[in-house]
Amino acid sequence: MDLTALRNANPEHWDKAAAIRTLTLDAVAAANSGHSGMPMGMADVATVLFEKHLKFDASAPNWPDRDRFILSAGHGSMLIYSLLYLTGHGDVTLDEIKNFRQLGAKTAGHPENFLVEGIETTTGPLGQGISNAVGFAMAEEIQRAHYGKKVVDHYTYVIAGDGCLMEGVSQEAITLAGRHELSKLIVFWDNNNITIDGTVDMADRTDQVRRFAASGWHVIEIDGHDPQAIDTAIVQAKKSNKPTMIACESHIALGHAAQDTSKGHGALTDQEQLKAAKEGYGWPHDAFEIPANVKSAWESIGSRGAAERAAWEERFAQISERKQAEFNRAYAFEAPKKLAGAIRAFKKQISEDQPKLATRASSEKVLNVVNPIMTETVGGSADLTGSNNTKSADMGVFLPENRKGRYIHYGIREHGMAAAMNGMALHGGIRPYGGTFMAFTDYARPSMRLAALMKVPSVFVMTHDSIGLGEDGPTHQPVEHLAISRATPNTYVFRPADSVETAEAWELALTFKDSPSVLSLTRQGVPTVRTDHKAKNLTSQGAYVLADAEGKRQAILIATGSEVSLAMEAKAMLEAQGIGTRVVSMPCMELFAEQDEAYRKRVLPGGPVRVGIEAAVRAGGWDRWLLGERGREAKAGFIGMSSFGASAPANELYKHFGITAEATVAKVKELLGL
Amino acid sequence: MDLTALRNANPEHWDKAAAIRTLTLDAVAAANSGHSGMPMGMADVATVLFEKHLKFDASAPNWPDRDRFILSAGHGSMLIYSLLYLTGHGDVTLDEIKNFRQLGAKTAGHPENFLVEGIETTTGPLGQGISNAVGFAMAEEIQRAHYGKKVVDHYTYVIAGDGCLMEGVSQEAITLAGRHELSKLIVFWDNNNITIDGTVDMADRTDQVRRFAASGWHVIEIDGHDPQAIDTAIVQAKKSNKPTMIACESHIALGHAAQDTSKGHGALTDQEQLKAAKEGYGWPHDAFEIPANVKSAWESIGSRGAAERAAWEERFAQISERKQAEFNRAYAFEAPKKLAGAIRAFKKQISEDQPKLATRASSEKVLNVVNPIMTETVGGSADLTGSNNTKSADMGVFLPENRKGRYIHYGIREHGMAAAMNGMALHGGIRPYGGTFMAFTDYARPSMRLAALMKVPSVFVMTHDSIGLGEDGPTHQPVEHLAISRATPNTYVFRPADSVETAEAWELALTFKDSPSVLSLTRQGVPTVRTDHKAKNLTSQGAYVLADAEGKRQAILIATGSEVSLAMEAKAMLEAQGIGTRVVSMPCMELFAEQDEAYRKRVLPGGPVRVGIEAAVRAGGWDRWLLGERGREAKAGFIGMSSFGASAPANELYKHFGITAEATVAKVKELLGL
Repeated sequence: MDLTALRNANPEHWDKAAAIRTLTLDAVAAANSGHSGMPMGMADVATVLFEKHLKFDASAPNWPDRDRFILSAGHGSMLIYSLLYLTGHGDVTLDEIKNFRQLGAKTAGHPENFLVEGIETTTGPLGQGISNAVGFAMAEEIQRAHYGKKVVDHYTYVIAGDGCLMEGVSQEAITLAGRHELSKLIVFWDNNNITIDGTVDMADRTDQVRRFAASGWHVIEIDGHDPQAIDTAIVQAKKSNKPTMIACESHIALGHAAQDTSKGHGALTDQEQLKAAKEGYGWPHDAFEIPANVKSAWESIGSRGAAERAAWEERFAQISERKQAEFNRAYAFEAPKKLAGAIRAFKKQISEDQPKLATRASSEKVLNVVNPIMTETVGGSADLTGSNNTKSADMGVFLPENRKGRYIHYGIREHGMAAAMNGMALHGGIRPYGGTFMAFTDYARPSMRLAALMKVPSVFVMTHDSIGLGEDGPTHQPVEHLAISRATPNTYVFRPADSVETAEAWELALTFKDSPSVLSLTRQGVPTVRTDHKAKNLTSQGAYVLADAEGKRQAILIATGSEVSLAMEAKAMLEAQGIGTRVVSMPCMELFAEQDEAYRKRVLPGGPVRVGIEAAVRAGGWDRWLLGERGREAKAGFIGMSSFGASAPANELYKHFGITAEATVAKVKELLGL
Repeated sequence: MDLTALRNANPEHWDKAAAIRTLTLDAVAAANSGHSGMPMGMADVATVLFEKHLKFDASAPNWPDRDRFILSAGHGSMLIYSLLYLTGHGDVTLDEIKNFRQLGAKTAGHPENFLVEGIETTTGPLGQGISNAVGFAMAEEIQRAHYGKKVVDHYTYVIAGDGCLMEGVSQEAITLAGRHELSKLIVFWDNNNITIDGTVDMADRTDQVRRFAASGWHVIEIDGHDPQAIDTAIVQAKKSNKPTMIACESHIALGHAAQDTSKGHGALTDQEQLKAAKEGYGWPHDAFEIPANVKSAWESIGSRGAAERAAWEERFAQISERKQAEFNRAYAFEAPKKLAGAIRAFKKQISEDQPKLATRASSEKVLNVVNPIMTETVGGSADLTGSNNTKSADMGVFLPENRKGRYIHYGIREHGMAAAMNGMALHGGIRPYGGTFMAFTDYARPSMRLAALMKVPSVFVMTHDSIGLGEDGPTHQPVEHLAISRATPNTYVFRPADSVETAEAWELALTFKDSPSVLSLTRQGVPTVRTDHKAKNLTSQGAYVLADAEGKRQAILIATGSEVSLAMEAKAMLEAQGIGTRVVSMPCMELFAEQDEAYRKRVLPGGPVRVGIEAAVRAGGWDRWLLGERGREAKAGFIGMSSFGASAPANELYKHFGITAEATVAKVKELLGL
C-alpha cells in the first residue's frame, strides 16, 4: 500500500483513521498484549461509518433510537475503545486507554457490554456479534411496528472478520437475517485474508459473496481503505430492501512491518516497528497523543447526533403517555404491575383444578396469561413450537409481511436463536424467550453462557428435560444439562414440579433484569403438588417445605420437577412404615443459595438423612444440599442418573434406571441402617 | 405424485423401496412413536444407492474398506433399520424391527453406532452426521495415502435433511470439505421442504445449491423419486474431483395422506391411512411382511459385495506384515508397545530437568514423542495451532496436495473440528486429537457429548484452562467448563499439574478405546511438582498423595493442574506453623472414582480437614471428594472461582479472586478453628 498516496488523497480522513491506528499501537504496546492488526485494518471503514452515517450522540450512549454498532471481531477491541475515546464518550478516558487490559479497567481485553454504556454487546467468542446483530435488527423491526417510525428507526452495523464467518453460528444468523429481510442490518466483512494460523486459504476457500447472496443478502465489494467507496457502499446498503454485506478488502496491521501477516493479528509491541509505522502514517506525535485538531474533529462527530436526539425526544414526548410508559418500562426490564396479580389468579385456579399436565403444557398456559399483558415479550422456538409449547394464542408470527408478529420461527438454529435472543434483549425494549429440547442446550451453549456474562435476562425454555422424553433416546435425553447450566455463574435454573411452580418460575424469570433463566420442563404429565393455594411465590426462595414429616422427622427428600411427585409417593410409603419424612421441593438451587442461613437451615435442618431425587446426574449441584457446604451435616444419598439414557417409553426408563419411589424408600432405609 | 406411474415405470425398484416404506409405517405404528415421513421420502434414493453403488457386505458390516453410509437425518432411523434388515444384517432381525424403540432393542429411536455394527455413527442431533462425514472422508484420504489405494479406497455417502443444513455446524463441515476437496464425500440432500414447524420457507429461503457451490462443491439437482436420475447422479458424483451434493427433490411421507406436510415428519399411526398408503403402493401384504422375492432381491444386494471383500482381503494379505499389523492395531485402537517406554523415558528426563513450563507446552513435547511412533494420530486445531501447541515437529499439513499430512488446520470451526474428529475415529484406523481454548468447549460441546455417548476416544486438547489465560478476559476464561465435561458420562477429564502428569494423561488418553478425553492445559508456566521419577503412571489412579504431612496430619489439600504447585506452597506455610498437611494431586476425578474404596480411603482418609483448590467453580465435581459421598467424612472448604473472570494479567487475577497459598492457609486454619 502506498500510504502517502492514501494520505494525500484525503488528509483529514487519514488523520482521523491514523488516530485509531496509533492509539491501538500505543495501547497494545503498553499492555504488552492484545490485537493490533484488526483496528489498524478497519480504521478507514470505522471512520467513515462514524463520521458520515452512524446515528449516535457520544454524550448519551444509551439513547434508544441510536444506530447500533457491533464489533463482532471483538479481539479488535481497541477499535471500539479508540472510537469511544475520540468521540468523547464520558467513561472511556485517555487514562482508560492507557490502562488497556488491566484489572478494573473499562477497556477490557474484549469489549464488555456491562463495563461501558455504548458497547452494545460482549464480543470475542467469534460469530456471536453478527448473530446478536440479527436480534438487534429484529428488535428494531418489532419495535418500529409497535411504536412507529418516529420513535424507532435505526440501523444495526456490524464489523465481522473471517473468524466470525467461519463459525457455524454465522450461517444460522445470515440465513435467518436473509429470510426475514432485515434490511436495516449492514455487515462489514473485514476481508483481510489472515487468521491466526496463517492465510485464510489454508483452511477456507469459501466464496463469501456468493454465500451471502445465496441467503438473500445484498452484497457490495469495495476497497476497505477507500473512504469514498466506503461511503458510497453504506449509502447503497441503506437503500436496499435486504440485509447488506459489504466485503471490505483490507490490510491487517496496515502500514506496520507485520501488515498482511498472521503476526499482524496479535500484539505488535516492537518499539522500532511501531515508530516506523507511525512515520509511515505521517504521525510525529507522542504515544497516546492526539493532536487537538484531530481530537476536535472526532468530537464534532461525537456530538453530530445531538440535534437529532433532541428532535427524537420531542417526537417521543408526542406519543401517548401510556405508550411512553410502556416503552420506558420495557427498556428498564420492569414487569408490568398486572403481572403479579395475573400469576396469582392463575395459581389459584390451578390449585383448585389440580390438573395432571406436562410442565411444558403448563408453561404454554402461563404464556397465554403473560404475553397479552407483556407486550415486550418475543417468543420462538428452534423448529419445535408444538413440542416446546412456546407460542401463546395471541402471538402473531414475525415475518417481513408482519413486523408486529412477536413469535419467531427460528428454524433448526438453536445457537442462532440464543444469540438473536441476547441481541434483542441487549437492543432494549424486548424480553425474549425461546425454546428447544433441553439436550440441545449443547447447541445454544456459547450464547447461553454469554447471556449470563452479559447480564441479559433471556429466558431459555428447555423442554423434554430428562429420560421422561422417552423413545427418542439418549441423544435427546438430557442427563448433564442441569449441571451445565447450574455450573454457569449468573444463571437461574428453574425445574418446576407442576403448573403452580411453572407459573412462579415464569414470574421470576420475567422480573429478572440482569440474569438469564433456564426453564427445565417435562415432556410427560405430572400431577399438581401445590394443591394448597399460597399467594406468595414460594419458588422465589428456591426451595421450601412442600410437606412435612407426620411422625418424628427421620428423613428429608429433596426433589425437583417431575421427581417431586415421586418424592411425595415415597414419603407416603415411608410414613406408612413409621418413618417421618419431609419433602422439600427445590425448583431453583441458585435462589435457595441466596436465602439467609437461617432459612436454609429451617428447610434443611441437620440430623435427618437426606435423599436427593432428580432424573439427572448428581454433579448437578446436589452435594451442597445433600451434604452441607462444609460437610458433616447429614448422611445422604441420591436417586438419579449416572449414565446416558436409552430409547424406550418413559415409564420403563424410570424403572430401568431405578428412579422410583421404591428405590427412594430403599435408599432412606439403607441410610437409616434399617 | 402418480404412484401407479412410478410403480409401472420400474416395478422391481418400486417394490424394494416399498419394502422400506411399509416396514417404516409398520414399525412406527407398532411403537406408536417415531418418524415415518423421512424414510418414506428417501426410500428411492437409498434403494438405488444400496443396489447399485454402496460397497458393502451385509455379512461383514465392519469390513474396513466398505463404503460408509451415514444417515445424518437420524430421526429417519427406520430407513437404516429397514436397509440392514432387508439386506440380511445378522443383528437387525425382523423381531428387532417389530421391537422398534423399545427397551433393549437394537432399533433405538435414533441410530446408535454402539448398538449395531454397520451403523457408522450416532445421529439425531441435527448436523452431526454430515459433519462426522467430513472426518470419515478425511480418514479415508489419510489412510489411502498411507496404505495405498489397494487397501483403502471407498466413498462416504450421507443423507442429510433440511435440519442438518440449517444447523450452523453444517456450514463448518461443508466449507471444510470444500477446502480439502474431499471428492469421495457424496451428500444427498432430502429436499422435501418440510420441517416440524411447517414448510422450510417459514424459517429459511437459502439457495442451498448456490451455498454448496460457494464452498467448492459439485452440485447436482434431481428428482429424488426417479431411480435412473439417482443412479446417473451418483455416477457423476463419483467422477468429480470435488465433494458432491445431490439435491433430491422428494416428498416426505410419499403416498400417505400426510405427504408433503409437517404432520408427515412424525409418527403416522392411523390404521386407515396406513392401509390406504399401502394400497397406493400396490402392497397387499400383512404388517411387517416382505414377500420372498423382494426379500431375496434385497439379500442379493446385501451379498453383492462379498466377492469384492474377498478380493480386498487378498490384496490386504499382500501388503507387508508390518503394515498389516499397523493397520489392525490402529483399527483396534491399540497403542503401540513402544508407547509406554517412550512416555517413561520422557517422564524420567522431566523429573531430572524439572522445567517450569506451561502444560500446553509440555503437551507439545509429549506429542513430539508420541506422534512419530503412533502413525494413526491426526492432530489439529481450530486456528490456534501456536497457542494450543498441537502440531508436533514431524507432522505434515493435510491438504489436497499432501494427503499424507496428519495435521489439520480446521479453521475457526471448533464444532466442525470436534465432529470431524469423531468421524475419523468412527471411520477407524485414526486416533484424532484437536485443540482450542477451553472456554470454547462451548462451541464444540454437541460433538464432545456425542463422542462420549458413541464411545469414541477423541482427545480434546483444551488449553488456556482458567483465569491464568489473563488479559483476554472473561469470554475466554473457562470457569464452568471442567464442571461441564466432568458432568458428562463416559468422559475423562485430565488436568495435569506439570510435564510429568501431562505425559501420563496423554498416555492414558491414547490407550482408551471407548471414551473421549479432555486435556485441560495451562497457558501459564507451572513448576515441575513430580520431581521424583516414578515409572508407574500415577495419573492412572486419578489422584495420589504427592506429598504427605510431616507432622500430625491435620489437613489435606486436594488440587489439580496449575493449582497443585500452589497447594505445595500452602503446605510449606502450614507445616511451618506446625500444621501437618498432605497434598493430593487429582489430575482425573473419573479415574479416581474408579479406584477401589480402600485406595480412595488411603488417599483421602477421614479426619483431617480438606480444602480443594482449583481455579474453577466448586460445582466441578468437588463436593464428592471434599465431603465424602455420603457426607460426614470431613470438614471442608474450597478455594476457586464463583463468578466469571476478568481481564488482567494472570497473576493479578489469581490474587484478585483469592486463589493463593495465603488464602488456602487461611481456609485450613478457619476449618481447624485456629
